[in-house]
Amino acid sequence: MKLANEKKFPVIAYGAGSGVCGGTLPTSRGVVLDLKKLDKIYEVNDKSLTVTAGPGIVGQHLEQELNRRGYTMGHFPSSIYCSTLGGYLAARSAGQLSARYGKIEDMAMGIRVVLASGEVVETLCAPRSAAGPNWAQLFIGSEGTFGIITRAVMRIYPYPESRLFHAFTFNGVHDALESMREIMRAGVMPAAVRLYDELDTILIGGKKEGSVEDPINFDEPDESPVKQALHKLKEGIQDVLVSIPKATGRAAEFIKGKCLLVLTFEGTPAMTAAELKTSIDICKKNNGEDAGEEPGRRWWNNRYNVSYNQSKVFYQGSFVDTIEVATTWDKVEQLYHDVRRAVSKHAFIMAHFSHAYTHGCCVYFSIVSRGRNEDDAIKTHKAVWDAALGECLKAGATVTHHHGVGLFKGEYLLKELGGLTDVFFKMKKAIDPANILNPGKLGLPDWEG
Amino acid sequence: MKLANEKKFPVIAYGAGSGVCGGTLPTSRGVVLDLKKLDKIYEVNDKSLTVTAGPGIVGQHLEQELNRRGYTMGHFPSSIYCSTLGGYLAARSAGQLSARYGKIEDMAMGIRVVLASGEVVETLCAPRSAAGPNWAQLFIGSEGTFGIITRAVMRIYPYPESRLFHAFTFNGVHDALESMREIMRAGVMPAAVRLYDELDTILIGGKKEGSVEDPINFDEPDESPVKQALHKLKEGIQDVLVSIPKATGRAAEFIKGKCLLVLTFEGTPAMTAAELKTSIDICKKNNGEDAGEEPGRRWWNNRYNVSYNQSKVFYQGSFVDTIEVATTWDKVEQLYHDVRRAVSKHAFIMAHFSHAYTHGCCVYFSIVSRGRNEDDAIKTHKAVWDAALGECLKAGATVTHHHGVGLFKGEYLLKELGGLTDVFFKMKKAIDPANILNPGKLGLPDWEG
Repeated sequence: MKLANEKKFPVIAYGAGSGVCGGTLPTSRGVVLDLKKLDKIYEVNDKSLTVTAGPGIVGQHLEQELNRRGYTMGHFPSSIYCSTLGGYLAARSAGQLSARYGKIEDMAMGIRVVLASGEVVETLCAPRSAAGPNWAQLFIGSEGTFGIITRAVMRIYPYPESRLFHAFTFNGVHDALESMREIMRAGVMPAAVRLYDELDTILIGGKKEGSVEDPINFDEPDESPVKQALHKLKEGIQDVLVSIPKATGRAAEFIKGKCLLVLTFEGTPAMTAAELKTSIDICKKNNGEDAGEEPGRRWWNNRYNVSYNQSKVFYQGSFVDTIEVATTWDKVEQLYHDVRRAVSKHAFIMAHFSHAYTHGCCVYFSIVSRGRNEDDAIKTHKAVWDAALGECLKAGATVTHHHGVGLFKGEYLLKELGGLTDVFFKMKKAIDPANILNPGKLGLPDWEG
Repeated sequence: MKLANEKKFPVIAYGAGSGVCGGTLPTSRGVVLDLKKLDKIYEVNDKSLTVTAGPGIVGQHLEQELNRRGYTMGHFPSSIYCSTLGGYLAARSAGQLSARYGKIEDMAMGIRVVLASGEVVETLCAPRSAAGPNWAQLFIGSEGTFGIITRAVMRIYPYPESRLFHAFTFNGVHDALESMREIMRAGVMPAAVRLYDELDTILIGGKKEGSVEDPINFDEPDESPVKQALHKLKEGIQDVLVSIPKATGRAAEFIKGKCLLVLTFEGTPAMTAAELKTSIDICKKNNGEDAGEEPGRRWWNNRYNVSYNQSKVFYQGSFVDTIEVATTWDKVEQLYHDVRRAVSKHAFIMAHFSHAYTHGCCVYFSIVSRGRNEDDAIKTHKAVWDAALGECLKAGATVTHHHGVGLFKGEYLLKELGGLTDVFFKMKKAIDPANILNPGKLGLPDWEG
């Protein structure tokens, strides 16, 4: 960084490159700074429940080492096998158990950062503080444009003694969303709350089991001939959807079916039992049909697979993408319908609601579409995003809950920031006057050297 | 602010002036901007559980209105009768139930800020986001040096259906601290966890009951003649301590007595019952003696009184002050002993441990001392702070957990920031080039116009 500052060339911090918004894609000449060898675990503090590690460590390696010692960080993005701690922090990642353990920015207690000048600074590591603004939160989420994170102290937790699953089905998303909201409102902290809309509920049943080895061993449920036949059927539906996405996109508007809500609880046996009981009462009150433990266990065993199953679609000449936005509970359901309506002109779209909080949740859309040729596909892809994030900006929802901004979402971010854009640009100029840190990302000025 | 920017004069945002670090004390000519009339509640959102209010609203008024509608914000600083929402946000305040509801920075979802230029900006209101750095956290804690908060969207919660109290006594702080740590580690979210050291345990019994009306009605326990006599005795001890603080400060090193741990739980009956059971098991395992519900109820009924009881000491020619620092669990106990040892040369010092988190807690020291005259008292006061915060800086603890920095702690803050000071100063210059926003605070450059 000192050399880059002296000679003035761009530096793009790089972990495992699993990001989906082009955050590590150079836009000009420069150096990609691979941090993968900064992968040490420096300390696991048994008393304070913290782990200190380098940014290059792969999520799964960090979690496995913590598990071995009886802990968990609670961060389980579906990219866990091919993404790093530094990448999580840079782009404000969320894992599948964020309802209990928070997002990565909630987990970070202290960070070490290399500035554009090459100087190394550290934020103080305390459970909470009132010592001026929270400086760690200025670097976290800046995707390498304000500094490069070279070490982090993260909060960890005892590996849960108890893990419970339970699922309910609902007629339509409304009652299910109300149940999610009320569960969070009751002070329950489920490890995961995932609600699949009608289409996502049909499709998730078709996922193959156990294609990636799971670190936690559960007995696999027997695969009866009837279930196997159902899987075949669902795979057939998937294939049709994938080949004619725009038509199915419009047709899907009229599908009325069941929605699956999957709940997971982690903690001491006494606490998880109380949480499960409270949640069951709420779901029943909202007309949920008890679906038992099995759908939850099935989700658990397949929870990382989705990220590795998309290539099939690409081989067929189509494209898939995911759009993860977030808003407060008063707007969630309307936003879901508005985005679906706006996008279904251009693509097949389905969604699940995950990452629930007391005050709102994330809506995670999956889209499939295609173009007559590559140019047309790119145009359609842009039309999908404009439609989806246009609805978000109109509603006052955030354009990204946990995938970050990178190169692709810069224009949407600046629209979300509005008047804060000026503050953002001034801060960038103050901290990186030569614009050498990952230029052109997050809507910031591109390299002009 | 537009006028101030044009004519270049300092502007000091002011709420109720209850801060104890001189954050609203002008250091030069300028304008004190009283925000007390921006005290409206704009919206209580029943679905998203948010309240939108002006910065001038007094904490107690906001909480009362929320209670009336069946909600709580969960923010209960002992200054609640004479402090404002804007002040809380500016100085990163904490309330007595922070273990459950978090500090004010955790409660804030979105803020509106007037910049030095007079421009009004807003941060997006979402439960979580990955849209670049968290801009709200740049203004929160900046104590009016980066901008003036003119509106805030805050997280609220259903008013708890159930509130349980339980207390334990321990021989010395060690076992009690271990219990606190293990309770938080077990995933219990008590509303309050307060541990008084030996001296603080002797003295809190002497506080008078019910001198400030409590919004929640509990039956007052009968005041037997024996208890009344005990109160007299404790008041006598207080008077002696106050008149010869330095001598008692040294003598106090040798006092070995009981430490009181008070626990409070809030939430649904099922959840609080599970939390209480888990906590009792942990305290018993760590040699705690069951002290029943009464000490908890007594604390609850007196919880705001301490802030209004200090004038007695000042009349007697002494001074009192409070020092609230925070660190991770591995350092808490050692820091407590080190600060006590360092300060007891200059003052009588006692402490309680409150604001517990899974990863550490706040140590709240109360000090009493005096000087031969005013100059000597000021010198002694400075010696106390240098000794206490010197130990904090050595240990890597934060110099303030929730009182903020203001004018008084600027030098200590800059020592805590170290290399980040340069980033801080650059950011300030970028956002307020004429230095008109509360100059001279947080260790920033003073007004030179």
